[in-house]
Amino acid sequence: MKLILIGFGVVGQGVAEILQSKAEQLEKRYQFAPAIIGVVTATKGALFQPAGLDIAALLSAAQTGSFQHYPESVGLRRDMTASDMIGAGSADVLVELSPTDLESAQPALAYCRQALDAGLHLALANKGPVALDYHNLRSKAAARGLHLRCEATVMAGTPVMQMAEEALAGCAIQAARGILNGTTNYILTRMEEGMSYAEALAQAQALGYAEADPAGDVEGWDAAGKVLILANALFGSRLKMSDLDVSGITDISSEDIAAAKAAGQRYKLIAQATPNGGSVKATRLPLSDPLASVAGSTNAITLETDLMGAVTLIGAGAGKLETGSAILSDLLAIHRIANAT
Amino acid sequence: MKLILIGFGVVGQGVAEILQSKAEQLEKRYQFAPAIIGVVTATKGALFQPAGLDIAALLSAAQTGSFQHYPESVGLRRDMTASDMIGAGSADVLVELSPTDLESAQPALAYCRQALDAGLHLALANKGPVALDYHNLRSKAAARGLHLRCEATVMAGTPVMQMAEEALAGCAIQAARGILNGTTNYILTRMEEGMSYAEALAQAQALGYAEADPAGDVEGWDAAGKVLILANALFGSRLKMSDLDVSGITDISSEDIAAAKAAGQRYKLIAQATPNGGSVKATRLPLSDPLASVAGSTNAITLETDLMGAVTLIGAGAGKLETGSAILSDLLAIHRIANAT
Repeated sequence: MKLILIGFGVVGQGVAEILQSKAEQLEKRYQFAPAIIGVVTATKGALFQPAGLDIAALLSAAQTGSFQHYPESVGLRRDMTASDMIGAGSADVLVELSPTDLESAQPALAYCRQALDAGLHLALANKGPVALDYHNLRSKAAARGLHLRCEATVMAGTPVMQMAEEALAGCAIQAARGILNGTTNYILTRMEEGMSYAEALAQAQALGYAEADPAGDVEGWDAAGKVLILANALFGSRLKMSDLDVSGITDISSEDIAAAKAAGQRYKLIAQATPNGGSVKATRLPLSDPLASVAGSTNAITLETDLMGAVTLIGAGAGKLETGSAILSDLLAIHRIANAT
Repeated sequence: MKLILIGFGVVGQGVAEILQSKAEQLEKRYQFAPAIIGVVTATKGALFQPAGLDIAALLSAAQTGSFQHYPESVGLRRDMTASDMIGAGSADVLVELSPTDLESAQPALAYCRQALDAGLHLALANKGPVALDYHNLRSKAAARGLHLRCEATVMAGTPVMQMAEEALAGCAIQAARGILNGTTNYILTRMEEGMSYAEALAQAQALGYAEADPAGDVEGWDAAGKVLILANALFGSRLKMSDLDVSGITDISSEDIAAAKAAGQRYKLIAQATPNGGSVKATRLPLSDPLASVAGSTNAITLETDLMGAVTLIGAGAGKLETGSAILSDLLAIHRIANAT
């Protein structure tokens, strides 16, 4: 399986590290031997080597901040765009890891479309294309027998997408409700322990959970993007961001949190989707709700189903290896089916 | 896909009801059109119809307690054994739903072996064969490119097996630890609310959670069977029941439970497996442990992994549709791969 990676930041390097450290096991256990043949980045340059890039050298070069430090080899090219690489016809899967843009999803969306037209499977950590254009991508993929996989976009490698689409394929999913943003859950947990919002946010930033501009997290937009993806994938909805009722945690005071605690409840930023719509909203939960005990930066989701009732999944929602693991999971799923043919 | 069902009690009838009620959706969404061609039971008789049994008539006949009430049709046979049906060469999957025997696993184990030799995939709700002879069955299946699937044996349709083997296929699982018996969890939950053990057990029996002879549940053997299955499937262990450290909840008094509660803890019957062994043991958990808040007959499991850290799954552990759903999930997984070839 030959891969093109768009983006080589934390997640891309996580994917590369995992493929390197697990190469022997993946080959032995699953006869799975992927090669990264192309990498395109916004700041480090680009590399394309149809024979497969050397992962150790790729990671070293990335550490220096520029692929100029990747060694020369026969056939290596440094001047190709993402479009050139997709068009070159050597790859099997496009792995889209560039930063999420929830307004246009570009340029990632254009690359995804081009890749499907060129017969490549898709594995995304970038939420934009699946939040904004899931249905068109899905139909394009289905028409060509290609995979559109996006495990990494919701709860990192905690396998909610595979669970919903494959392990629970026989169930009708009626609703999804969860804690899908680790930064806000971390802040709420610290506030319940007595910190002010400002202190908790500063600590989340110091730990690398929250961006310097935390608006995407604390105003609910990151979770809202995930709601769109779940609504698209689980219910075939065609919701737009403007259809969602989105608020964050910025209006929740220490007094609100103390009042909830006194009443045996707990605030969580709850993202939910049903076939009729979705929302992101700080919500007081009774402590008996499995979501109430999800603390710190951990994520969780409860799927309501016809045959199984509620199924809850709790795990990491971010992280280098955790998100890289989601991409590996998607690649293995593609491999399982491809291998059977 | 043509199915033979061994056993047609609660789970078998659940499977049949689901296949009937979801027939249209399964065909439309997955191009999946399974037919039950044979059913063998200990008390109701047997039916074999290569053209496919009528599910509504099968369910009606089962309600009367005897397949004698299933209507005649051309090609219908009522005199075949499980062995005869497997040997007839018409089926694709053997669905083993007969009662679990954790000492010999027979006669189910013999049927499973015969089925694999005859080229049939296996889907089991019966824990015996996979608890006692997983490795041999697995090798036999692998040698012929057949599936050995047993989602229903642990946590009903809560998809722990698919999660561990497929969705987390890229992770090394280092330990599994969970609440795998709903009856004992129900009893412990009621005891914490103030009931005596005897009252809580009587209520579990009245609700149909516990058998008239509750020893298999309350002494830990049911959970231990599941530990063997997890150890076999997740770690490739070759543990026997005698290798496990098994105790139940019969020694836990109301005073123990009150003492735990006073210390901010909670008793749970924790089943755990690592590559080095396994146990079932009533354990005091801090309330911050995600397993501590799993109440009533609900089951839960935490998998410790290399890439993802802890991943916890919470859901039903028993029930007619819940267990039937696991069988459907296994059949769909077989169908996905078969369909790709």
